[in-house]
Amino acid sequence: MTVYEVGPRDGLQAEPGVVPTAVKAELCRRLAAAGVRRLEVTSFVAPRWVPALADAEALMGQLRGRLDAETVCLVPNRRGLQRAVAAGATEVAVLTSATDTFARANLNTDRDGALRAAVELTGLVLDAGLRVRGYVSMAFADPWEGPVDPAAVAGIGAALHGAGCRTVSLGDTIGAATPGHVTAVVAALGAAGVPTGALALHGHDTYGQALANVYAALLAGVTEFDASVGGLGRCPYAPGATGNLATEDLVWMLHGLGIATGLDLDQLVRTSAWLAARTGRAGIASRAATALLAADASATETEGAAT
Amino acid sequence: MTVYEVGPRDGLQAEPGVVPTAVKAELCRRLAAAGVRRLEVTSFVAPRWVPALADAEALMGQLRGRLDAETVCLVPNRRGLQRAVAAGATEVAVLTSATDTFARANLNTDRDGALRAAVELTGLVLDAGLRVRGYVSMAFADPWEGPVDPAAVAGIGAALHGAGCRTVSLGDTIGAATPGHVTAVVAALGAAGVPTGALALHGHDTYGQALANVYAALLAGVTEFDASVGGLGRCPYAPGATGNLATEDLVWMLHGLGIATGLDLDQLVRTSAWLAARTGRAGIASRAATALLAADASATETEGAAT
Repeated sequence: MTVYEVGPRDGLQAEPGVVPTAVKAELCRRLAAAGVRRLEVTSFVAPRWVPALADAEALMGQLRGRLDAETVCLVPNRRGLQRAVAAGATEVAVLTSATDTFARANLNTDRDGALRAAVELTGLVLDAGLRVRGYVSMAFADPWEGPVDPAAVAGIGAALHGAGCRTVSLGDTIGAATPGHVTAVVAALGAAGVPTGALALHGHDTYGQALANVYAALLAGVTEFDASVGGLGRCPYAPGATGNLATEDLVWMLHGLGIATGLDLDQLVRTSAWLAARTGRAGIASRAATALLAADASATETEGAAT
Repeated sequence: MTVYEVGPRDGLQAEPGVVPTAVKAELCRRLAAAGVRRLEVTSFVAPRWVPALADAEALMGQLRGRLDAETVCLVPNRRGLQRAVAAGATEVAVLTSATDTFARANLNTDRDGALRAAVELTGLVLDAGLRVRGYVSMAFADPWEGPVDPAAVAGIGAALHGAGCRTVSLGDTIGAATPGHVTAVVAALGAAGVPTGALALHGHDTYGQALANVYAALLAGVTEFDASVGGLGRCPYAPGATGNLATEDLVWMLHGLGIATGLDLDQLVRTSAWLAARTGRAGIASRAATALLAADASATETEGAAT
C-alpha cells in the first residue's frame, strides 16, 4: 500500500503564511526519515500564482541527492517542466480538471483544453525520462457545478493513462464525496480501461468524509492514497474548513487493518508537532496526531508526578 | 436508517463547564425539530459522579410531554431507574463494559458483575413497560488492556439481547477501532445469535476513524448509529482530542449514500452553531458543520458586496 505524501506541496500551498525554505527542506527530510517514499515536494508554477511555493528551485537545491524518496514536482506547463527537470525532480505531476468551471478559474482554459495540455505535457515528461502522475481535480463535485458525472472523469483518466501517466489520482478537491460515489467513480475508470492498480485517491476532509472514502476505495482495489502530514492544508472554498486527509489518520486506519505502509506513525506525529511549533499553527488537523500527542503529554505528566 | 442522538447526554457529560438546564432543554427541542426521533437526554447517575448531568429531573421536567422523540435516559442502577421512570423516560439505556479495568474504574465492579447488574436492570425496565438499550463500553479496545477479544464482546451482547435489550450499542469508547475490527465484532455478535438489525455502533472520533467504521458497519448490515450534534464531547483519556462522531458528518455521508435519515442537515448545523455560541466553545468539532457554516458566511459576504 502506498501513502503518497502531499503535505509540502498541496498542504503548504493552502496554508496561510510562507514557511521558510529551510523549514520545508527539514520537513521533507523528516518525512523521508519516517518512511515516506513518494513525496510531492513543490510546484513549478509561476511564483505570482502561488507565492507560498515561489522557492521551488531553492528547496529542490537543498534536497537534491539527499532525499531517499521519489521527489515529485507538480508542473503546469512546458516551462515548469523545464524548471523541474533542471532542479532534479524524479517524477512529475500534471493537472487536469473534471469541470469547465474549475479549469477556467485555475488552469486558464476549459476542461478539454486542460486535458490536451496535460496529455502533451505527459509526452514531454516521458521524453525527459521521468515518470508522470496525472491529477483529475474536482473528480467528484465542484462548488459551482455540483456532482460530476463519473463517465466524464473516466474519460479524462483513460486519456491520462493512455498518454503514459503511471498513476491517475482522483481528486476530491472540495471533500464533498461519499463512499458510494467513490465506488462508482473507481468502477467507471475500470470500465474505461484504467486498471484499478493505476489509481490513487486524493481526498480532502472538508466534510469529514476522507477516511470513509479511502475505505470504500480500498474495498474497490485502490492501492495508493494521497495524504498530508498533520492534515496540513486548508480549503479555499470554505475558510476555516479542514484541508487534506491527514497522513496520521490514514496510517492509523491502514495499520489497524493490518496493511503495511512502511511508515513510522510516531515519527509522523512528531514531525507534525515539530512543524506546528515552527509555523505557529494553532493545533494539528490530524485527529490521530492530536490524540497521540495528548496521551504522550499525559504520560509525561504522570511520570513527572511519580519521580 | 436510525441516527441515535447522544449529544445532550454523552456529549455534554464530557464537555468542560456546566450548561444551564434551559439551554439543554432548548437543545433537545431543536434536535427534535431537526428530525431526531431517538434522543438520549440525560443520565440518572448520582449527581456527585457526573455534575454536568445533576439536573436530570429538572431537564426531564421541562421536556415532559413536549418532545416528539423517544426520550432515552441512561441509568446505572435500580435507584436511577426509579428516578428515570418517575421523570417520564420512554426508554432506558443500561451500561456494561467489555473490560475489567474500565468496569472497575467506572462501574465499581468487574466485567461480569457489570453484566449481571445490567441484565437484572433490563428485567426491571421491561417490568416497568419501557424499552431498553444496552451499551457495551470498550467493545474494541481500552486504554489499559489494548484490543478487546470480539468473542468476549459477543458474549456480553448476546446476554443483553437475551435479557430483552432492543438494541445493543457497541461502544468504541476510545475511538481506536478501525474498519476491519468493526466487521469482525459485528460478525462475532451474529455468530453469538444477535441479529445485526439489533446492533448499533457508538463511535468516538479520537483517531479520526469513526465514519470509516460506520461505513464498515453499514456494509455489515448495521442500521443504527450513535452520534453527537456538532461532535459535542471530549475524550477523558486524551485531553484535547475529539469526542463523539459528529451527527452532521454522519448525516452528510448517509445522505450522500442515498440513505434516508429523516434529519434536516441545515437545522442540525444551525443547532450546533447556536449551542457553540451559548457555551463559548471555540469552534465546532463537526467538519461538515464547520464547512457548511463557512460557506454560508462566505455567501452572505458576497451578497453583501453585491448589493
